[in-house]
Amino acid sequence: MEDRVQRLRMLLTREGLDGYLITDPANILYFTGFSGGSGMLISARENVLYVHGVDYVAARGSVKGCRIARMGWGERLDLKVAEAIKDLGIKHLGFDVLTASTFLKLKKALNRVELSPKQELVWRLRRVKDAAELERMRRAAELTAAGIRRACEIVQPGMRERELAAEIEYTMRRLGSDGVAFDTIVASGPHSAHPHAGCTDRRIQRGDLVVIDVGARYQHYCADLTRTLVVGKPTERQARILRLVAEAQERAIQLVRAGVEARKVDEAARTVIEEGGYGQYFVHGVGHGVGLEVHEPPSLNPKSEQILEENCVVTVEPGIYLPGFGGVRIEDTILVLRDGAETLTKLPRVFG
Amino acid sequence: MEDRVQRLRMLLTREGLDGYLITDPANILYFTGFSGGSGMLISARENVLYVHGVDYVAARGSVKGCRIARMGWGERLDLKVAEAIKDLGIKHLGFDVLTASTFLKLKKALNRVELSPKQELVWRLRRVKDAAELERMRRAAELTAAGIRRACEIVQPGMRERELAAEIEYTMRRLGSDGVAFDTIVASGPHSAHPHAGCTDRRIQRGDLVVIDVGARYQHYCADLTRTLVVGKPTERQARILRLVAEAQERAIQLVRAGVEARKVDEAARTVIEEGGYGQYFVHGVGHGVGLEVHEPPSLNPKSEQILEENCVVTVEPGIYLPGFGGVRIEDTILVLRDGAETLTKLPRVFG
Repeated sequence: MEDRVQRLRMLLTREGLDGYLITDPANILYFTGFSGGSGMLISARENVLYVHGVDYVAARGSVKGCRIARMGWGERLDLKVAEAIKDLGIKHLGFDVLTASTFLKLKKALNRVELSPKQELVWRLRRVKDAAELERMRRAAELTAAGIRRACEIVQPGMRERELAAEIEYTMRRLGSDGVAFDTIVASGPHSAHPHAGCTDRRIQRGDLVVIDVGARYQHYCADLTRTLVVGKPTERQARILRLVAEAQERAIQLVRAGVEARKVDEAARTVIEEGGYGQYFVHGVGHGVGLEVHEPPSLNPKSEQILEENCVVTVEPGIYLPGFGGVRIEDTILVLRDGAETLTKLPRVFG
Repeated sequence: MEDRVQRLRMLLTREGLDGYLITDPANILYFTGFSGGSGMLISARENVLYVHGVDYVAARGSVKGCRIARMGWGERLDLKVAEAIKDLGIKHLGFDVLTASTFLKLKKALNRVELSPKQELVWRLRRVKDAAELERMRRAAELTAAGIRRACEIVQPGMRERELAAEIEYTMRRLGSDGVAFDTIVASGPHSAHPHAGCTDRRIQRGDLVVIDVGARYQHYCADLTRTLVVGKPTERQARILRLVAEAQERAIQLVRAGVEARKVDEAARTVIEEGGYGQYFVHGVGHGVGLEVHEPPSLNPKSEQILEENCVVTVEPGIYLPGFGGVRIEDTILVLRDGAETLTKLPRVFG
């Protein structure tokens, strides 16, 4: 963790900042390995992690390279931080995210300090995963694949969407998942036409398209994986749409490597779907970054201006959603390599 | 939902605001019933809900009393909202939460509009639960109690913390839970001394204290429930601490009713624990509000300045944490009534 702080310091120097305030819990976790901090101040002279009394013993036991400051009942983080900023003589403070309300209070308390939103600095680091992160992400991806494999084994007509979700989550949890990265989607029949359907008590019927979108969390890292099943024999139209989405995904993944523009990956998938006549039904971008959070930069959509870097982890997930009929989405979590891509969620694209 | 917007409008008028911008997802859900909106603008002339293309069809189908504005690829919410604010002639805009970065952009785009952080207005409504909310919260509490009951039935030496968590979550999920309100805590033996322990692969041993802190989510509403078990026969010291925490909780709950100061409820529990000689080991406040989020206002701690209102839902959860030895916490989710309290999480305080 301390090398991450070191790399952030280098970015600060380059930006002319002599201090940096972190309040996003995922960022605090990234720089300390500790979940439970309320804020973190980084400066040349010292780093401070602010914690409530309830987390003090745990923080003292696990966090290195930081002074641990305990917050008393009703003590305000902004006042405590403002005092430290003055004591440390910080002149130009960057920060990741502050609420407008906290920002205005800090501004008032520190009228000689320049305050600049600089969230991008943290993303520059977090976008690219190191070896320790990749190990966890591989495991999260394996657990997720095991969950979907289990769903394919047991799905049958009459089962409720929620029951299938319960079985998937139980499988992942017993294998070592810390929980889900997001609310599991099991969307059957007409529900599958809504990309953000959750899961309901609907009973899955023979002939349904069933979109299963799930992610395990392992030691704070997320995976994201979608497969679409047909319960029984697919109709010709279902089979055609499944083939089209699978082809779109394959083409997009073939393009993934370091240095590629994110929007080109989206374009590759979108072109296949457009040429198949379903362009207007692909209503979202083709993917997003994954890491400590399930939705991170870079965003892969037609207007994205980002470039994929080596050791970024992103999803590739084209879909076609036909209101009333149903939907198909196929998604994998992919590691960007210098010369290509590695699919972390190892599972056949289409089942049956 | 529309009556909630109506009540917010009345508060706006009283505050001299002619517009209100909402960006917190839980608040958007509260006012629209729809999860998936990116922002919501309320004004005398019209309400606008901003959604991405991926959620557009769903929003159109379910949200009433709002114009649904679709955001294109790469379109910025701040610019779109700024335009609407100008068009609607809003002069003094309140908002719930904005990032400093968005706030600064809006300020620049709207140099004649006054922008005021007014999150408290929403909390004034959300703190007090209506009948529809209470119905969901009762169900969330029932599901959670069923999960803990299951844990008590099956816990035995040799079982891993994570396995027990998996069984609890599976039980709640199959009964209708939409997922967990927070990461389940199953903390055994020395782990139980850390109030925010998660769960690990540690095998539970005979004689361990096991703190189980869990919450189901049901139709977006949370519950929060903790019980502490001893696997086997408690030692005299364990039994004494369990009795002390149970008594502290009982005394605190006896005090709960509309009009009581939140800090008095904390004080009631804290006094029992202090008189028992463990005051310094009760390292957190006695409770917090619960609703769409698992941690909401009011906060029940020694410095709290809030008053409990009728139909608030709060936790009461004293604890004693002895590093190296273990911890005990007993927590229920409680509905504040005019003349008393109703415990929503119905379960014996101490088992065995």
